[in-house]
Amino acid sequence: MTNPAAGTPAESTPTTTRIALLGAGNVGAEVARILLEERDELTERIGAVPELVGIAVRDLDSPRTVELPRELFTTDADALIDSADVVIELTGGLEPARTRILRALNAGKPVISGNKALLARHGAELHAAAEAAGTSISYEAAVAGAIPIVRPMLDSLSGDRVNRVLGIMNGTTNYILDQMDTTGASFDDALAEAQRLGFAEADPTADVEGHDAASKVAILGGIAFHSSYTIDDVYCRGITGVTAEDVEAAREAGYVIKLLGVAERVADDGDPGQPSGVNLRVVPTMLPRKHPLAGVHGAFNAVFVEAENAGELMFYGPGAGGAPTASAVMGDLVAALRRSVAGGPGVGPSFHADLPATSVDGVRTSFSLTLLCPDRTGVLSAISTVFAEHGVSISTMQQRDLPADDQYPGQRLAELRIVTHQARNADLVNTVEAIRGLDVVLDLRGLIRVENPS
Amino acid sequence: MTNPAAGTPAESTPTTTRIALLGAGNVGAEVARILLEERDELTERIGAVPELVGIAVRDLDSPRTVELPRELFTTDADALIDSADVVIELTGGLEPARTRILRALNAGKPVISGNKALLARHGAELHAAAEAAGTSISYEAAVAGAIPIVRPMLDSLSGDRVNRVLGIMNGTTNYILDQMDTTGASFDDALAEAQRLGFAEADPTADVEGHDAASKVAILGGIAFHSSYTIDDVYCRGITGVTAEDVEAAREAGYVIKLLGVAERVADDGDPGQPSGVNLRVVPTMLPRKHPLAGVHGAFNAVFVEAENAGELMFYGPGAGGAPTASAVMGDLVAALRRSVAGGPGVGPSFHADLPATSVDGVRTSFSLTLLCPDRTGVLSAISTVFAEHGVSISTMQQRDLPADDQYPGQRLAELRIVTHQARNADLVNTVEAIRGLDVVLDLRGLIRVENPS
Repeated sequence: MTNPAAGTPAESTPTTTRIALLGAGNVGAEVARILLEERDELTERIGAVPELVGIAVRDLDSPRTVELPRELFTTDADALIDSADVVIELTGGLEPARTRILRALNAGKPVISGNKALLARHGAELHAAAEAAGTSISYEAAVAGAIPIVRPMLDSLSGDRVNRVLGIMNGTTNYILDQMDTTGASFDDALAEAQRLGFAEADPTADVEGHDAASKVAILGGIAFHSSYTIDDVYCRGITGVTAEDVEAAREAGYVIKLLGVAERVADDGDPGQPSGVNLRVVPTMLPRKHPLAGVHGAFNAVFVEAENAGELMFYGPGAGGAPTASAVMGDLVAALRRSVAGGPGVGPSFHADLPATSVDGVRTSFSLTLLCPDRTGVLSAISTVFAEHGVSISTMQQRDLPADDQYPGQRLAELRIVTHQARNADLVNTVEAIRGLDVVLDLRGLIRVENPS
Repeated sequence: MTNPAAGTPAESTPTTTRIALLGAGNVGAEVARILLEERDELTERIGAVPELVGIAVRDLDSPRTVELPRELFTTDADALIDSADVVIELTGGLEPARTRILRALNAGKPVISGNKALLARHGAELHAAAEAAGTSISYEAAVAGAIPIVRPMLDSLSGDRVNRVLGIMNGTTNYILDQMDTTGASFDDALAEAQRLGFAEADPTADVEGHDAASKVAILGGIAFHSSYTIDDVYCRGITGVTAEDVEAAREAGYVIKLLGVAERVADDGDPGQPSGVNLRVVPTMLPRKHPLAGVHGAFNAVFVEAENAGELMFYGPGAGGAPTASAVMGDLVAALRRSVAGGPGVGPSFHADLPATSVDGVRTSFSLTLLCPDRTGVLSAISTVFAEHGVSISTMQQRDLPADDQYPGQRLAELRIVTHQARNADLVNTVEAIRGLDVVLDLRGLIRVENPS
């Protein structure tokens, strides 16, 4: 390859590729910096000069995290797109991002995007537009920040059969749960600490309610199972209800609570209302301490993949941040440009399998729950009977006596911690409802799913 | 895409791609099984029918781990290659593998290989042949078995600057060291156990002496640093000298001993004999227990990557085994065929940077060592002086009194455990030699490198 900077003689000057950048936030500004600082090295890798021709922003005067040449900025995104060979979209939100990406794709220009909300809503439309125009849309940055997971799933696992994807895909919630686990903090205190350190936003809803992770599950689940999903296909529960007591009880039992994004193949279990397909969910989950995902601390992300032949794989790294996410954008960009220099179009994901998203009802899982009961004969028997009637068997039950409580005068109290064997989610939910209705159950707390019970 | 199995009407029948498989060992047999069993699904993913046209073996009557149709086998590898569109080489060894791969590449046929010894010796020649013929050679299976690391390094990190790669790239040695760590076993006992369980071969030399890992470091280091290396560029030390006492001492200090393959950028430190470049090495290394690689147990592999923008990434999974390694082969195959169906050639790695492999002398690292000394005044001072004279500073020093030893009659004995700060490897080696020569040092044991001292 030619290196103009080194003045290599006798080889032809490489062509120039014109790059349009939409958005100059945290990630966009880092992408611009890398394109400007690493131009010579990138030219070597791509075989063409990557020229950043402009950065479209809403407000020319907004402060930026990186100092960038003023003359690159424009408010006319459409003109910038029309003047470029490849478009990087890092604005976020549904519109005008969707319309602009379609404008580029329809003109046959490769697009790199980090827009998880858009991809989890209109991914199918964007892929169809790319395929129709013989170009590509890439979005490594949309899932788990810097961690290479979209590309390995598309290419490296393209000859295998994925059975399950388990991911810690949101750094804010992992930071909060890790703080609760290591310091015994309450959810509110851990959230406040995360906000103070910049790991959580002033309005943390999208993170703590699981919506951010749900977008990523929809995108990654689609790629893993060669099907197309939206965020509406994802059953989503956040971590606002996880208490310090839940975390403590999990620790005592050898577990840690993580907010897991899960996409898993669900087999036909003979229930006509429950087709085989893929269940997509985001739920606080107890994981055994020895599971590789249990060791993912702080704001780090990781994705654990169970495949038929490869077995168990894990991909670990920073799930957010300007420079790490920019690295993912740059990987997509260089890969797309190298392919385009080599003369071939990109190869998009295949969605031929079209597996339906299934209800969480049919998923086989385990529950952990804690019951407050009077300490007298007949209680255990009443509770066990309800489990048996619903076809749910108990894996472990621990009982401990509690001190007297003014709220329940004159009663000796006991706490029962129960972990069930795997059963259909719907059966577990019905069991829990029936248990809750028993006279001998004063309170039911700490209800949480368990993966891979040991 | 068309699915002939589903009888989709109105679309054209997909073309057929003729696949030649060389070798039917553990991995080859699994690849053949997957190609035959998953033909319909693979057709959907590729957009063409992957037809296994033959399997070249040395002996038609050798027993196989998977039952395969007899009529597929042939001993005429050349004729099989000539009849195919794509070639999978899983025979191992340098020849005839090299000549056969060149035959396929020179004819413009994509090659998938899992042959680490060949790639670590003749990789540059094979890449050049692929580029000259406008085709590709892929070898995800050659490094860390099922773990997607070659493809992510080539594509996902193509826009970043890798600073260091640390890998547990040999399952046999990781199993042995993990056994020594968790059970206190000696090297010999752990090796025997590994052999009994099939994790180590009858002749374990290539594994325990680090040669297998060294091949992988040469291959992965070349990709990470856009340069071309051979196994001769890798400084290699095995684990046969690691004792139960070393493992125990490391544990007491909060470390675990792993056989690490390392490829790291070495800056110009002003020493004219030591150019900036990349140091490649395989060495038993103490890692802090909290490092993500410290939690990689049994025969699992993992590769830890430190990149300028992405930060710290880890890729974890099974490093060997028939089906897992076959998954990596199949990923390369499907990716190559999808690109070829889409009309573009593969894009090979770039080796433009051409960074020299540097001697281990200039690498900055830390040493841990244990000294047996008489317990009297002046000893500490004599030892400290030697360190100071060589410009090596001491990070921690722990002394404990030892019981009397008949080997050293009439002396009170003490054991000193020293961990140094980071210093040039050459200075550390000279320091250790000088220490060894001191009168007051009766024995020097447990000399081992330390990464990321806490």
